[in-house]
Amino acid sequence: MSDKQKGYFITFEGADGSGKTTQISKLSNYLTNNNTKNIQTRDPGGTELGSSLRQILLHYPNYISPNCELFLYLADRSQHVDEKILPALKEGNIVLCDRFIDSSLAYQGYGRGIDLNQIIELNKIATRGLIPDLTILLDIDTDTAANRIAREKDRFESEAQEFHKKVRQGYLEVAKSDPSRFVIINANQSIEDIFTQLISVLKEKQVI
Amino acid sequence: MSDKQKGYFITFEGADGSGKTTQISKLSNYLTNNNTKNIQTRDPGGTELGSSLRQILLHYPNYISPNCELFLYLADRSQHVDEKILPALKEGNIVLCDRFIDSSLAYQGYGRGIDLNQIIELNKIATRGLIPDLTILLDIDTDTAANRIAREKDRFESEAQEFHKKVRQGYLEVAKSDPSRFVIINANQSIEDIFTQLISVLKEKQVI
Repeated sequence: MSDKQKGYFITFEGADGSGKTTQISKLSNYLTNNNTKNIQTRDPGGTELGSSLRQILLHYPNYISPNCELFLYLADRSQHVDEKILPALKEGNIVLCDRFIDSSLAYQGYGRGIDLNQIIELNKIATRGLIPDLTILLDIDTDTAANRIAREKDRFESEAQEFHKKVRQGYLEVAKSDPSRFVIINANQSIEDIFTQLISVLKEKQVI
Repeated sequence: MSDKQKGYFITFEGADGSGKTTQISKLSNYLTNNNTKNIQTRDPGGTELGSSLRQILLHYPNYISPNCELFLYLADRSQHVDEKILPALKEGNIVLCDRFIDSSLAYQGYGRGIDLNQIIELNKIATRGLIPDLTILLDIDTDTAANRIAREKDRFESEAQEFHKKVRQGYLEVAKSDPSRFVIINANQSIEDIFTQLISVLKEKQVI
């Protein structure tokens, strides 16, 4: 894993509607403007194969069993780590990834009720033990998040508010269990205020 | 799991070209003609969702990482067990399944080199501990099997003969480790000779 240390792996976590995609895009522009090599990617769907799996995971119209769903995420993640994330880190990139292992804990674990230790062990296999250097949790009220999703909702976004509350609580628990990796940012703020805070976190951690 | 005992779960294993599909079809006809409720199914691809995964597993044109491949099989199997196999067993069917857990051991374990205990543990999650009542291993020379595949070969069929030899040896090892569940039939024989032997196995085990 020592080669990985040439790059820096940042994951963004939080509810749909918390603004992850916007912040990743803004940060990528900022880094590029400052001559810092970086890539944007997402989980699921960071590879060509993963795009097919993302389509199933977010839009399959019928029932998917919880274990099937979990294994599909793990399949996507295995391919993503091997084909894209590890090579990009080895080339010295800052890798900005929209969701990663903590989404499995929050959604499949806290949300769907699959055993958390099982999810952790399975993720170790899928990621070959790769853990983000930094995880930004964009924490947002579930009502505010729901109101921000204007387009047609996907399989997860369509879940009841009760599910989303469990997911939010799950994220906060996971963050509490690993405070050296997680930084929680209040995502009820404006895009600019969130971004200012994000940049100051990265400066404080001497990433930039 | 007691409900499962109303039915009987038979899996067919062996190389492509060993005649699994033909034997399953003949056996299903035989059972139906003898008023015995049965279903034919296959792994991967036994469900609607599984059909998409089978398409990826057998025909995706580019590289799939070994762990991704394994997780895709497990995703397919989870859905298959929950949506189709367990319900069919509960209704008292004899379930005839073309490949199951032992294919993961033979192909991803012995063939690709993934740790066997890891595959066993992951399969326990995917299948909820469901184990076949009987597994028919159609054992065939790798050269004979290769010659029987006339159509365009899929991702596995296209592997080198060395891979197929490891898979065959793997199957024989797995069968040796669980002799009460496995029956090995020499699949170099004619279709009719294999079927005669299959029927006598089922009579001996009082399945029919």
